[in-house]
Amino acid sequence: MSESAQEIRPYRPVTPRIVAEIEALCGEEHVLSGDSKAAARYAHDQVSEARYAHAPELVVKPATAREVAGIMALATREVVPVTPRGAGSGLSGGAVPIHGGICLSLERMSRIVEIDAKNRIAVVEPGVVTNELDGATLPHGLFFAGYPMSEEFCFVGGNVAENAGGGRAVKYGVTGRYVVGAEVVLPTGEILDLGGKRAKDASGYDLLRLLVGSEGTLAIFTKVFLQLLPRPLHRSTTAVFFRDPRSALEAVPDIVSAGGQLPSAVEYIDRYSLVETCSALGESLPLGDALAMLLLEVDGASESAVALHAEAVREACRVRGALSVLRADAPGEAERLWRIRKRIPWALRRAAATQTVEDVVVPVSALPELLDEVGRLERTYDTRIPCFGHAGDGNIHARPQKGAAWTAEEWDVRLGKLLTELYAAAARLGGTISGEHGIGHKRKPYLPLVMEEAQIALMRRIKRAFDPANILNPGKIFD
Amino acid sequence: MSESAQEIRPYRPVTPRIVAEIEALCGEEHVLSGDSKAAARYAHDQVSEARYAHAPELVVKPATAREVAGIMALATREVVPVTPRGAGSGLSGGAVPIHGGICLSLERMSRIVEIDAKNRIAVVEPGVVTNELDGATLPHGLFFAGYPMSEEFCFVGGNVAENAGGGRAVKYGVTGRYVVGAEVVLPTGEILDLGGKRAKDASGYDLLRLLVGSEGTLAIFTKVFLQLLPRPLHRSTTAVFFRDPRSALEAVPDIVSAGGQLPSAVEYIDRYSLVETCSALGESLPLGDALAMLLLEVDGASESAVALHAEAVREACRVRGALSVLRADAPGEAERLWRIRKRIPWALRRAAATQTVEDVVVPVSALPELLDEVGRLERTYDTRIPCFGHAGDGNIHARPQKGAAWTAEEWDVRLGKLLTELYAAAARLGGTISGEHGIGHKRKPYLPLVMEEAQIALMRRIKRAFDPANILNPGKIFD
Repeated sequence: MSESAQEIRPYRPVTPRIVAEIEALCGEEHVLSGDSKAAARYAHDQVSEARYAHAPELVVKPATAREVAGIMALATREVVPVTPRGAGSGLSGGAVPIHGGICLSLERMSRIVEIDAKNRIAVVEPGVVTNELDGATLPHGLFFAGYPMSEEFCFVGGNVAENAGGGRAVKYGVTGRYVVGAEVVLPTGEILDLGGKRAKDASGYDLLRLLVGSEGTLAIFTKVFLQLLPRPLHRSTTAVFFRDPRSALEAVPDIVSAGGQLPSAVEYIDRYSLVETCSALGESLPLGDALAMLLLEVDGASESAVALHAEAVREACRVRGALSVLRADAPGEAERLWRIRKRIPWALRRAAATQTVEDVVVPVSALPELLDEVGRLERTYDTRIPCFGHAGDGNIHARPQKGAAWTAEEWDVRLGKLLTELYAAAARLGGTISGEHGIGHKRKPYLPLVMEEAQIALMRRIKRAFDPANILNPGKIFD
Repeated sequence: MSESAQEIRPYRPVTPRIVAEIEALCGEEHVLSGDSKAAARYAHDQVSEARYAHAPELVVKPATAREVAGIMALATREVVPVTPRGAGSGLSGGAVPIHGGICLSLERMSRIVEIDAKNRIAVVEPGVVTNELDGATLPHGLFFAGYPMSEEFCFVGGNVAENAGGGRAVKYGVTGRYVVGAEVVLPTGEILDLGGKRAKDASGYDLLRLLVGSEGTLAIFTKVFLQLLPRPLHRSTTAVFFRDPRSALEAVPDIVSAGGQLPSAVEYIDRYSLVETCSALGESLPLGDALAMLLLEVDGASESAVALHAEAVREACRVRGALSVLRADAPGEAERLWRIRKRIPWALRRAAATQTVEDVVVPVSALPELLDEVGRLERTYDTRIPCFGHAGDGNIHARPQKGAAWTAEEWDVRLGKLLTELYAAAARLGGTISGEHGIGHKRKPYLPLVMEEAQIALMRRIKRAFDPANILNPGKIFD
């Protein structure tokens, strides 16, 4: 795919003159040649399939918005593509420079500029690791509630660009809810200040929310203002085992309403994912005959209210026919359960050499049907599709694995058909192909399955309004 | 303003042929001639100044998205401006047809299509009155948390178009947070389905959030999907009196963090607004020497947790030097306090024949300075500026009143200068000119005070991407 894209691409190469200009702008030591050994890791993100990778011609690591603006003005003038990059923790190829050109890495812009406790606002540069921000907010009794599961390594800038979600979105929503301001650089090199430390804004179009989740195709975030919340003092975690996926997922709407308030997490994990992860970690769970588990958490400021809420959640599970309910009250038990949940992607990568990470989202009530459909696809395509994810949001990570008996070519053909059926099922159930990982170039061919042409055409016109030369992360989301 | 706009307008008149076509589309009985008596109320919204009013040439009340699409396709073809209208409860002139043309009233599209309790989603047409929706969600133990203060008469469609906020935004955010899907009609007549009953979506640009708050200039909402929350079972309301505005507003950051969770309301009211409102309603409050009051509310699922939270909030007020703290525990007392709060706009309209309703928003920590600035403006311009509003969000409704001694011309000149200074102060403090009422045409001349030209230019390009003929609500937000 990337090769044919290269053949027809309208872009100019990164000439020695352009390299020199960028070196003068950002400092020679912050520029890597694309064919250097150090540049290799900028050719891919966390998408493991090699065909989605592509090397940049140049990697540059600017330190300021002004440097980013200089690079963008140059790129627009020279018609050279620029692909912005955070931690490279993306799962749809958003940070892959599929047309070559410049990889603009924001890793050096990693300052926590300010924690403003009075206004409950963090001002950060895009290269801040999410967990660092968590550490910085802790002493103030605050936290950034929109964080994703990859908080140990993902950058805030990438979270914002992808509108990333995480394990607590059922109560707290995803990244975008907390973005109240930003400094951004447009593809043409202008620096804009959007929003700020104000909690509300009804002055003009909500450009901020348009940019959040636009996958680095409309502008580059160089500073982000995040609204923080009071950090909940109490939490209660429960693991609940169910006979099968359907009975687990049918319980979710009742769990989400139990006790008249939202739980902070409703995570679903199937038996295969649990067994593989426990085995890889040397952990164990009292699975019994259960084919599915829900990992549930409630949180709040009052210990007694949290206990009441947790009991209401457990009772909803019992009424719904749970096989067993495991209260994680013992010291370290909740952390142990969450560690198992978080290491699933790693364990599943070990379990199969070739697989693909999916991210479909449907209405919560449609989850049982979605998993039925996954079961049907497993049988039709004779493949294993482990599933886990954010059941409280209707967002499931299905990971079709290549069977050992197939050739790479057979897998490609089968996978294309399988994904087409999976996505069509998601659309039929009122869902779509990505809940939090984005489209990138990995899912781009499938977007028309879930989106009308008029809407894609409108997105193209918006892209043009921001990026007339089409040089900022071209070829992502749509062609 | 509207007259000069009319002189240079590029639009064609609504000819008898166009009237006939619209009558054929929607039914003769749903079309009003603009010079009919019944059409007079479509010439203005809740902005009281006559100069912001302008009559449409035609009022049409479509019943379906298909009819709306037919009108828009016709309007684009004939280059006739269309101004969508909800309840006319707006406060920035968003629904005023300043270029004449067609007023497209959504009052007949007033169906609550569905309350989907399992997914916690309400599907409604734009003409549903906000309080009706509240009534429909009540039996399910759910509620729409983004509602504004005008819930007795405002339409959901207008709330969405303006991204309206209300008295509980400090905890629950504003309308946009809850809009997870919509059917919209583009200016060119296409019908698009955006989002749906899914809680999350990372598939393409967030067009939904771009349209929310775009003041009816980019598309017309014909159906809205709103995420509902579990309805809190317990509430505790407190009125707290302070020596002066500064001491009340300096307490707000501590109140918002008290007890480690967000209160549901932190409303500010100055003495003049309280006295006028109590007098108009025949109510009384133990004001003493207080020049300012905060109306505080906490809510939640657990009675004991709410009581603890309320006590933490009251303690924060005491530590901050409150003169007195009035617990609204007696039956009906909380309702009485909220009624006083809600009737302030009505009481202030009675108190002065000519005034303007402002909506500046600043970081919460900057509220004391903002109110100092208002005091300075009162003295400089020899005018009274009552203030009240959503202190927890930094959003204050200042209402400069015309002094009896001034001519209308003097008032116009003074007001223009006063607003320029007020808005400049808001910008200097990190705020902007509207937190929830929007720009409309009323604040349009002032937008460049708080927004860079590059940002306004970008909004214009986005407008063009949606509305190439510039026929949907032209002349709002920017020229």
